[in-house]
Amino acid sequence: MSVAETTTADTVAVRRIQRSDPVFEDVAPAGEVVPGMTRRTILTSGAPLPWHRYRGGQRQAILGAAVFEGLAADEDDADARLASGDIALRPCHDHGAVGSLTGVTTWSMPVVVVHDRANGTRGFCRLNEGGSTESLTFGVWSEGVAKQLAHVRDVVAPAFGAVLRATGGLPVRPVVRRALAMGDDLHSRHTASGALLRLHLLDALVREPGLVPPDARRALAEYLEEAEYLFLHVAMAASKAAADAASGVPGSGVVTAMVLSCDEFALRVSGLGREWFRAPLPPPADLRGRLFDDWTTDDLDYVGGESLITETTGLGGLAAAASFPLQDFSAGTPEAMVELTERMYGITVAEHPEYRIPALRYRGVPCGIDVRAVATTGIVPAIHLGATLRHGGHAGAGLFTPPVAAFRAAADTLTARSGHTGEQP
Amino acid sequence: MSVAETTTADTVAVRRIQRSDPVFEDVAPAGEVVPGMTRRTILTSGAPLPWHRYRGGQRQAILGAAVFEGLAADEDDADARLASGDIALRPCHDHGAVGSLTGVTTWSMPVVVVHDRANGTRGFCRLNEGGSTESLTFGVWSEGVAKQLAHVRDVVAPAFGAVLRATGGLPVRPVVRRALAMGDDLHSRHTASGALLRLHLLDALVREPGLVPPDARRALAEYLEEAEYLFLHVAMAASKAAADAASGVPGSGVVTAMVLSCDEFALRVSGLGREWFRAPLPPPADLRGRLFDDWTTDDLDYVGGESLITETTGLGGLAAAASFPLQDFSAGTPEAMVELTERMYGITVAEHPEYRIPALRYRGVPCGIDVRAVATTGIVPAIHLGATLRHGGHAGAGLFTPPVAAFRAAADTLTARSGHTGEQP
Repeated sequence: MSVAETTTADTVAVRRIQRSDPVFEDVAPAGEVVPGMTRRTILTSGAPLPWHRYRGGQRQAILGAAVFEGLAADEDDADARLASGDIALRPCHDHGAVGSLTGVTTWSMPVVVVHDRANGTRGFCRLNEGGSTESLTFGVWSEGVAKQLAHVRDVVAPAFGAVLRATGGLPVRPVVRRALAMGDDLHSRHTASGALLRLHLLDALVREPGLVPPDARRALAEYLEEAEYLFLHVAMAASKAAADAASGVPGSGVVTAMVLSCDEFALRVSGLGREWFRAPLPPPADLRGRLFDDWTTDDLDYVGGESLITETTGLGGLAAAASFPLQDFSAGTPEAMVELTERMYGITVAEHPEYRIPALRYRGVPCGIDVRAVATTGIVPAIHLGATLRHGGHAGAGLFTPPVAAFRAAADTLTARSGHTGEQP
Repeated sequence: MSVAETTTADTVAVRRIQRSDPVFEDVAPAGEVVPGMTRRTILTSGAPLPWHRYRGGQRQAILGAAVFEGLAADEDDADARLASGDIALRPCHDHGAVGSLTGVTTWSMPVVVVHDRANGTRGFCRLNEGGSTESLTFGVWSEGVAKQLAHVRDVVAPAFGAVLRATGGLPVRPVVRRALAMGDDLHSRHTASGALLRLHLLDALVREPGLVPPDARRALAEYLEEAEYLFLHVAMAASKAAADAASGVPGSGVVTAMVLSCDEFALRVSGLGREWFRAPLPPPADLRGRLFDDWTTDDLDYVGGESLITETTGLGGLAAAASFPLQDFSAGTPEAMVELTERMYGITVAEHPEYRIPALRYRGVPCGIDVRAVATTGIVPAIHLGATLRHGGHAGAGLFTPPVAAFRAAADTLTARSGHTGEQP
């Protein structure tokens, strides 16, 4: 395959990311909207593993989700049912969805629904679990977690959905554009985008308080005030919708998914559809960033995570230069963050026409990771990632370096397949 | 006077700025809260001039304010009454107030009330006039302007005040701190701070919609959505409260006010109380920035302005490096904005302990302009300023270079007075 051909295929793929016009349209139970969802399905983050390989926080979250959903009497029962296949454990990405950290999602859990009106795709991500990071998301299962999950499902989500639908939805593109000029990277920092989403909903409620009953209104206001990373799940679902649109272009090496399970990093590229390219995760101690309290990198472990989907559309670590407030949780200094983003232009296919970085004189974010360029240069995508504790819980955030082996495997496969399928001129 | 003595006096003055703890407590008619206000007083921006010297947009705004307040039958009548002194024209700064651009304020007009709880001072500034820049603020007087002024006075302001009082007020310091990490300079850009203020009010209204009647609630929501620079007037009043606290320290050359009338730049320094040091304004064409539509610098003229009070507390142009989104309206590039702020450390007494700049590795903003340092180095404060049209109206924004002569005059006077008053050791 010639470079020109590669470029054409990659250009086709990246244009779908660039033109993506996601609208946050609804909040609804996963069972009602996520394709292929069943009452006995649990979605989780990462390329799929045999049940026995899930461990730590991710295993805990899956067991908790089974009990919460009423699919098992207790954790032991859940363990047996997951082992037997009575409960189907499935990767989020095969259902148009993406998972934050553990990513566990069951039938009754509310998800954000983002409709990409330019590409016609939809992306889903579980609605933020609320103010506490003692949550299934972070790999913790407890009575408190169950109570909060039920509150969000039964009180917050219906109110959230009702208000959002009444407004006709929230266009995501203007929010991302504005948030990048307000210090968000849209992965580890959502201070501005969260505020803009909150304004959208509160404004609608002030004009029409009767949209939801008084108690639910107050519960929603409290939730919106407390939920950290309120917009992250929306940005993730929006990126998923764009990435799915970019998938399936023959010959394209544009990355369409990067995921973590507790055990592996994996990725997909456009030209190879749903095939996963896997590599072992680097030691958690390699994470460069800042930890809360007295945690050290020895306390860390992986619990899964698919928020890296934001990097596939040029946000997160790729947009580090837009987010100097994250410096301690990223490359360390503003100068190093600029260097980080500038390095990313060497492994991406294009720049985003609207998502721009003020510190780089409004240059567009690097957009469309080229797996061949990563394989050739050895430069891997810069990823902003939440840090999690060995047995679940939030420990901080940092800069994650994905294993180059996964990118090389995908690049090699692309080359091999193109040789066999007669795609050359 | 020795350098050590100077330093001590300046340190005393700047510490009052550093410790300032402003709370946005109320919105109320100027007549009810502004010290020394009378029914026949009009406040305006700048060191006072004889009536016949007011021209262009500032003159138009003063005449309009007189008619709006019912102090004159029409503009001719207002002209005569201003000439005779029947209507008292007074500088905002002598009444604890500051004026945005023309700064015209009459008895019935609503002002923001900011209480500096650390220093015990209060600052006032007229409430933002609303969405349109066809306004008295920008030097325009018309039926539409009168209608909007009445709407803000009669509908918006009472609702705004009621909600704000119900919340116990909004602490300004955390808003400024957060907004600096979200791209605001707090003078020309208030995207983040305005959003945070709007969130504060909408959140309170969602929890208690009954705080104001439905029609007023919707009017307030619309006003909050449309008003540009919503937080600017709060930041100005907060800076005024801090600057007034810093005033009156014998021997201190810390700048406590910088103002424009249509004709002059003027400033005050701490050690010389209310005395104005004046200098002619540079040609409007010297403004470096970006104009809207097809305006050129030939179309510009001054209409007054005291928003420069934000620079006296380390915000605005002094904090340029926090606000790369303003690059076209400031020094042109992010690099030049960093250089601008870095230059300001050479003419300031201290750094703010909480107002920090992410792009400078969280260094505090340069705080407390030292008039002697300006006189010695010739480096003048960097000012972010709105650009106005010859006959009123908003034309854009840019970087304003104040005349060094005013700073030299103040520095010379400080030296001369200290020689006569025996303040030396």
